[in-house]
Amino acid sequence: MKNILIIGAGLSSTNLIQYLLKQSDKYNWKITLGDMSLQAAQKKIGLHPNGTALRFNLKDLEQRASEISAADIVISMVPASLHIIVAKECLKYGKHLLTPSYVSPEMQELHEEAKEQGLSFWNELGVDPGIDHMSAMRVINKIKKEGGKLLSFKSFCGGLVAPDCDDNPWHYKFSWNPKNVVLAGQGIAQYKENGHYKYIPYYNLFSNIIKTEIDAYGEFEVYPNRDSLHYCKLYGLEDIPTIIRGTLRRPGYCEAWNILVRLGCTDDSYKIKNSHLLSGRSFLNSFLPGDLEHTEENLNEFMNINKNSEAFHKLKWLGLFSNETIGIKDASPAMILQSILEKKWALNEKDRDLLVMQHQFEFTNTGMKKQIISSMCCEGKDKNNTAMSYTVGTPLAIATKLLAIGKLNLPGVHIPTTPELYEPILNELETLGVKFIEKEIIL
Amino acid sequence: MKNILIIGAGLSSTNLIQYLLKQSDKYNWKITLGDMSLQAAQKKIGLHPNGTALRFNLKDLEQRASEISAADIVISMVPASLHIIVAKECLKYGKHLLTPSYVSPEMQELHEEAKEQGLSFWNELGVDPGIDHMSAMRVINKIKKEGGKLLSFKSFCGGLVAPDCDDNPWHYKFSWNPKNVVLAGQGIAQYKENGHYKYIPYYNLFSNIIKTEIDAYGEFEVYPNRDSLHYCKLYGLEDIPTIIRGTLRRPGYCEAWNILVRLGCTDDSYKIKNSHLLSGRSFLNSFLPGDLEHTEENLNEFMNINKNSEAFHKLKWLGLFSNETIGIKDASPAMILQSILEKKWALNEKDRDLLVMQHQFEFTNTGMKKQIISSMCCEGKDKNNTAMSYTVGTPLAIATKLLAIGKLNLPGVHIPTTPELYEPILNELETLGVKFIEKEIIL
Repeated sequence: MKNILIIGAGLSSTNLIQYLLKQSDKYNWKITLGDMSLQAAQKKIGLHPNGTALRFNLKDLEQRASEISAADIVISMVPASLHIIVAKECLKYGKHLLTPSYVSPEMQELHEEAKEQGLSFWNELGVDPGIDHMSAMRVINKIKKEGGKLLSFKSFCGGLVAPDCDDNPWHYKFSWNPKNVVLAGQGIAQYKENGHYKYIPYYNLFSNIIKTEIDAYGEFEVYPNRDSLHYCKLYGLEDIPTIIRGTLRRPGYCEAWNILVRLGCTDDSYKIKNSHLLSGRSFLNSFLPGDLEHTEENLNEFMNINKNSEAFHKLKWLGLFSNETIGIKDASPAMILQSILEKKWALNEKDRDLLVMQHQFEFTNTGMKKQIISSMCCEGKDKNNTAMSYTVGTPLAIATKLLAIGKLNLPGVHIPTTPELYEPILNELETLGVKFIEKEIIL
Repeated sequence: MKNILIIGAGLSSTNLIQYLLKQSDKYNWKITLGDMSLQAAQKKIGLHPNGTALRFNLKDLEQRASEISAADIVISMVPASLHIIVAKECLKYGKHLLTPSYVSPEMQELHEEAKEQGLSFWNELGVDPGIDHMSAMRVINKIKKEGGKLLSFKSFCGGLVAPDCDDNPWHYKFSWNPKNVVLAGQGIAQYKENGHYKYIPYYNLFSNIIKTEIDAYGEFEVYPNRDSLHYCKLYGLEDIPTIIRGTLRRPGYCEAWNILVRLGCTDDSYKIKNSHLLSGRSFLNSFLPGDLEHTEENLNEFMNINKNSEAFHKLKWLGLFSNETIGIKDASPAMILQSILEKKWALNEKDRDLLVMQHQFEFTNTGMKKQIISSMCCEGKDKNNTAMSYTVGTPLAIATKLLAIGKLNLPGVHIPTTPELYEPILNELETLGVKFIEKEIIL
C-alpha cells in the first residue's frame, strides 16, 4: 500500500484528487488531503473509503513532520513560495515530491541531494507550466529527429470562457487567481524575432499583439509573456531566430485592457488617498486630466477613442463611469480594479471555462520550409469543475501514478521536458480528452 | 576665528567656496575643503591664504573624526545618501551642519537631539530643493497674511541652456547629473487638481504637460514631478484644491522624450543581451516590432509619427538610426541612452546654462480672484561656472554666513520654509542677481 499526501485543497486540486481516489482501489493507495480548512478538504474527499481529510497547518512543525514522514509521495498544492518548505521536509524523510509550479532557484539547488537519495522532485506538472512543456517538446524533438531545423517557435496559452457561456463584452471570465490576471505582464517582455532581441515594456505589451485562429473556436489575440528567452535553453533552442510565448485573449480584450494599463489602473505600487470614497468614475478620473463630470470626455480625448468604440463600451460595462462607491480602504489602483472585475468577471454557477493552448513551429527540412500548428482546447464542466483545474490537476495525477507504480524512475529535480516524462503523460491525457490537434503545412 | 569644513569639491561646490573665501578675511574664517581627489580640492581653493585643500575620505574614521571635531561648521556636499554619516559625526562632536539635499527620514530623526545640543542642521539649501521653498513660502505667507485664500499653486523649475548657446534640436544640455535626467519621473506622479487627486504613471508623464511662458525667455513646457502632494503639508497648504510641481523644458522636448520613455529606452531594471554589440539603430529597434533595416518605418508606425516630424528629427540627431557601435558592456537601456546623450548634450567650454524657476499662485481675496506669477531666471558664465552651481551654492553659502556670524539661531533639523531662514537668504540672493520678478493680475 502507498500513502499519498496532498497538501492544499484549493480549486486546482479538484481533479487531481478525483483521479487519485478513482484509481486508489486498483493500486491500493491511501490518499490523505490536508488543508488549513478541514471543511475544504472534507468536501473534496467526500465519503471515499481510501481518502482521509485533515486540517493541516504547514507552520505546525510537529504535524508537518509526522504527516510527511508517514507518506510515500507528497503532492504540494500550496502557494508557490511555500513548496520549498515541503521539499526540504521531503528530503529529510526521504519522500518523493510533485508540484505544479515553476522550479524556484532554491528548489533547483536540491537537485543533487534528491538524486543521491533516489528521490523524484517533479515540478511544472500542471498546464502552464506543464502541458505546454510536454506538448511543445514532443513536436520539437520530432522535428529535430527528422532532421529539421527550427526557425520559429511561438507558444500561446489562455484561460477563457466557453463560447456558449460568453455573455460579456470582454469575452473573459476568471478561471484562476484574479490578482495574477490584473498584474499580468508587469515588467518587461523579452523575446527574439528574426534573430533580434526584443524588449517590450508593460505599457506597450497590450498594443503589441499577435492574431491567431484556432479551429472551432475562431479568432484570438495574444500578448507576449515576460520571459520567452528563458525557454531557448529550457527547450534546447539556443539558436532559434524567433521565439515568443504569449497569453491568449479574445479579440478586443487587449485594446480595452491596454487603456487600463496605460492609465495606471493596474499599478500595485502605491495606495490611493481616501480610496474608500472612490466610485468607478472617480477612480478612472484619478488617472485623467480634467474634472469628474467630464470623465467620459477626458478619457476619450486622453486615449484618443470615442464613445461608440468597443473599448469605451467595455470600460462602461465595468462600471467605470458609475458614481456608486466601491469602498475599499487603503487600496492600490490594482486592488480597486480587481474588486471591480471580481464582480463582473466571475464565473456563474453553470458557466464553463475554456482552456486553450497553441504552438506554432516553423522549420526547414530538406530545403522545404514548413509549419506545424498544434492546438489543444478544453472546456470545463461548471464553475467548480473548470478546464483550468482539470488541466492543472490531471497531468500531476498521471505523474503521481507513474511514480507510485514504479513505471518511471527519474530521481532529482525535474520538469517534464524529457520524453520519459512527457510521453506517458501526454498519451494518457489524450485518452482523458486533453488532445493536441496537429496541422502541418508547407510554407 | 571660525573653522568651516566643506566635504566634497564637486561642480555644485564651486560658488559656495568662492563666496566663503571671498568673505573669509572680513569674518576671520578658515575654510577647509576636503575631497577624495586632492587635485579637485586644490583647484577650487587655489592660492587663497584662508583656504586649505585636503584629500578627504569619509570612510577613514580617524580622519573623519579629527577634521569634523576641528571644525565649527560642516557643509556636506557629498552624495545625498552619505549626509547621514556626516550628520551623526556632527552630533557626536557638537558641530553645526548644512546640506543642499532633501531631508531623509534618518536625518529628520536627529531633530530633537540636535535641538537639545543647540546645533543647527539645515538642509535643502540649494536651488531645488532650496530657493524653490524660500521663494514660494515668501509669496504664500504674504497672500495668507493679507487674508487671501489659496486656490492653486503650481511651481516649476528647470536647468536648461542659455538661448544663445542653444544649438541643438532638443534645446537641452546637461547642467547636472545625466543619470538623474535619464531616469527623471520614473514611478508615479501624484498631484491635486481642482480638489481631485491625480496619479500619472511614468509612461503618460511626458504627454501630460503644462505650457507656460517666462518673460524674455519665451515658451516652456512642464512635466509633473513625482510627489507634489508632499508639499501640501510642507507649505501649510493642506486644503488647497490644486497643487502641482513640475520640471521645465523647451517646447518639443517632452514629445520626443516621451517616445524614448514609451519605447522603454529609459528602463534601468534589466540588462540588454550583448549590449556591447549595439548601435543606436539596433538599440532603438530592440523596442520596436519589425526588422532592423526598417527601423525608421517601424518607429513611425509604432509611435504614429512621420519622418518629417520634429520628434523624428530629434531622435535622428541623437544617432538613433546610426549603425555605429556604441560599445557598452552589460548595460541597461538607460545606461546606453545616457551614454548616447552624454556625447550629444554636453555643455561646450563656453556654453552657458540657464536656470529657470516659476511659481503660479491663484487665490481669492475680498471676493476677487487673483493670480501672482513669480519667475526667476539665471544664466551661467561658462561650462564650469554654471547657473546650476551658482544657485545651488550661493544660498548655502549665505546660510553658512548667517550661522557663522550668529545672525540666526535656529537649532534642530530645518529646511528654509520659515521667514527667519528665507528672508535674509532671499534678500542677499537678490543683491547677487538671483531675483524673482512678480506679476499680479486680477482673473
